[in-house]
Formats: sequence, structure tokens, C-alpha cells
Amino acid sequence: MSDALFITFEGGEGVGKTTNIEYFKELMVQSGLDFVSTREPGGTPLAEEIRSLLLSTRDEAVCSNAELLLMFAARSQHLATVIEPALKQGVHVICDRFTDATYAYQGYGRKLGTERIAVLEGLVHGDRQPDLTIILDAPVEVGMGRARNRGELDRFEREDLEFFERVRKGYLARAKAAPDRYEIVDASLELDEVKQQVAEIFERRVVERLGAQHDG
Amino acid sequence: MSDALFITFEGGEGVGKTTNIEYFKELMVQSGLDFVSTREPGGTPLAEEIRSLLLSTRDEAVCSNAELLLMFAARSQHLATVIEPALKQGVHVICDRFTDATYAYQGYGRKLGTERIAVLEGLVHGDRQPDLTIILDAPVEVGMGRARNRGELDRFEREDLEFFERVRKGYLARAKAAPDRYEIVDASLELDEVKQQVAEIFERRVVERLGAQHDG
Repeated sequence: MSDALFITFEGGEGVGKTTNIEYFKELMVQSGLDFVSTREPGGTPLAEEIRSLLLSTRDEAVCSNAELLLMFAARSQHLATVIEPALKQGVHVICDRFTDATYAYQGYGRKLGTERIAVLEGLVHGDRQPDLTIILDAPVEVGMGRARNRGELDRFEREDLEFFERVRKGYLARAKAAPDRYEIVDASLELDEVKQQVAEIFERRVVERLGAQHDG
Repeated sequence: MSDALFITFEGGEGVGKTTNIEYFKELMVQSGLDFVSTREPGGTPLAEEIRSLLLSTRDEAVCSNAELLLMFAARSQHLATVIEPALKQGVHVICDRFTDATYAYQGYGRKLGTERIAVLEGLVHGDRQPDLTIILDAPVEVGMGRARNRGELDRFEREDLEFFERVRKGYLARAKAAPDRYEIVDASLELDEVKQQVAEIFERRVVERLGAQHDG
């Protein structure tokens, strides 16, 4: 069996996901670990086309079931063509968002509930879960302020503050229900302090785990 | 309760679906029946974009789960924005393909089986089924010959003969399992004879049914 790790990063808007994923990847490189870096929705040409459908603003209101099914369509393609093949070859996978984002954004944010998401999760990747999920957490007003400074907002970023409060609550509820899989980073601090937390998690959850496995 | 009918047309490639739907619509107009005519995958701007994703040829192999989820994403949007609103207003709906096509093409054609389709059907339209499904049925070589004469083939039409044999078998199995909902038209005959069958079904399943309801 491959001991490759499937690591996902999660969080709301403007929490510094991109910057911290880059930093995490540097740590992987410095430790000589072989990995692929990918993102959701997207990660394959077809899945990126689905991502465009999801993120573009349009006159037609997208019904919540359609949004959910598009997310899992992209995910299914991504798993089959990128994630599973890498893990099977012993290559670690670092992914910007995964099914936790669907629970947080669609389940909690859009108030779809978690039941139908669980059905689709079972259908698409019942037996494949991330080994480690790092949630970058910050109060909504902090994240939204940063996202606004970046420029134009996409269809998700246009949602109101209450929506993002529910998204944040969703992530924290997921982490609380399965603490072994999740690490929560306080992303409201200065970037250097956030990076320190990420480095500590890398040491404890990646280096030590792989070290132990290699010794075993 | 609205007595509007939800009528779907099904069949493999080259069975004359377009022509016979046009004929059926003429019969509806002649009887003064109010209806919307639509198609799957598609029927709304977003669903048509999903249709384009599904039908375009690409280097990347589309995994069967992704295809299935895209189909139901388009269907979900189509139901929410076109089909349900029309039926609720008492307007009949005539739809070129619906979930039977998913069972036939993905379930039987691609050998995905019917289990996961049934899960998605339950999620997306558990309580909404067509009142009448007209299957245009012809031996595969007849239909494929006609489709080829029309010009270039899309991603589905490029499948081999055995694929379409399974699709046909799928449609017939569906009809056999729930004969009340289905009417099978022998589409291998000359067009005039096919139209005669369609007219007879229209009389028996639409005119008589609505007449009886209006009397009741």
C-alpha cells in the first residue's frame, strides 16, 4: 500500500489560502517530498470548464441542486484522472478545497443541509477521504476585507456576510466532528505567525507521520 | 391540481425523434393545447452550456460518474426553471429526452448499471415522473445509417454498434418494467406509417385523457 498523503486546504474568502499553500509546498520541496498540487473545483481541463460554469456570473439563477451536482461532477473527474492515480503511484496530493468546501458552502452557506451532500460524497468518493485537512480560519469581516482588496468578486464572493458566517461555522463544525483529520490555523494573525502554525502542522502531521511510516 | 401532462420522447440515434416531435407538436397546436417544448440535456442557458461540455469531443476521457453527474446537474436546472413552473401553470411539457435516456445511455450503454442513476433520480426528481414516454424504436443499423447521413457525429454518436444495441435494450427494458407510462413506436417503418402511430398515441393518451379529466 502507498503511504502517499492526501492533504486538503480549506477556508473562506481572503484567509490566505493561496499564500499558505505555496508556503506548504516549499516545505514539501525542502523535505524532498514528491507531490502534485491541484485545486477544486477544477484540476483537469473538463473540471476547469465546469469551474468556469460555476464561477461565472449569469442572469439565470443556478438552482442549488444543479450547483451541487456540478461540483461533484468536477470532483469525480478530478479524482479519477489526477488524485487517485497520483496517490496510487506514491505521490502526495495537495489540494486547494475538496468536499469539506461543498459541505461548508452549499450545505451550510446555501442551507442545503448535509444529507444530499453525504449521498453524493458516498457515490463519488465513499472510500477516499483526505488524510489531513488544514482549515485557515478567520473572522468573516477580516477575510472579506482582504478579498475585496484583491479586486473584482466572483459569483461566490458576492454573497452577503451572513452567508460567509454560515460557511465558517460549517468548517468549524466539520472539524469538531472529526478532530483527527483537521488542523485549524488562526488566519487572522500576521502572515509570519500564520506561517509558523503551518510549519508546525507540517512537522507534526507530515514529517513525523512519514518518518514513523518509513521506520515501520 | 394542474392536469398538465409531462410528455417525453426517447430513442437512439437516427430514429426520427426530431421529425416526430415536430409532428406531435402540430397535433397539440391543432387541438388548441398550450405547451412548452424543450430538450435534454439542455433547455436553459446553463443546461445548454452543460450540454456543450457533454457533447464536445475532447482528448481527456470523461469518467462515467462525471458524465452522469453533469447530466443530472443540467436536469436539475431544467426542472427547476422550465418544467416544474410550466406544469404548475397548467402548461403541458414536451421534452426531447429525459431520465430514461440516462438509464439507456449511461446505465446500459456505458454499463454503469442502474443503481447510482436511481440514487440521483431520487435526489433530483423523486416525485416527478413523465406522464407519458414515447419511445421511437428501430434496429440499430437502421438508425445509425440515418444518423451518418446527417453529417458529422458527436461524442455519443461515435460509440460503436454494441453500445447502441445496449441503449436500445435499455429503453425496451424500461418500457417493459412500467408499461403504463410508455408507448413504443416502430420507427423502422416509412415516415407516414410512423406518424400514424404517433397520431394514434396522441389521440388515446392525450386527447382522451384530457377529455376525461375535463368531464370529471
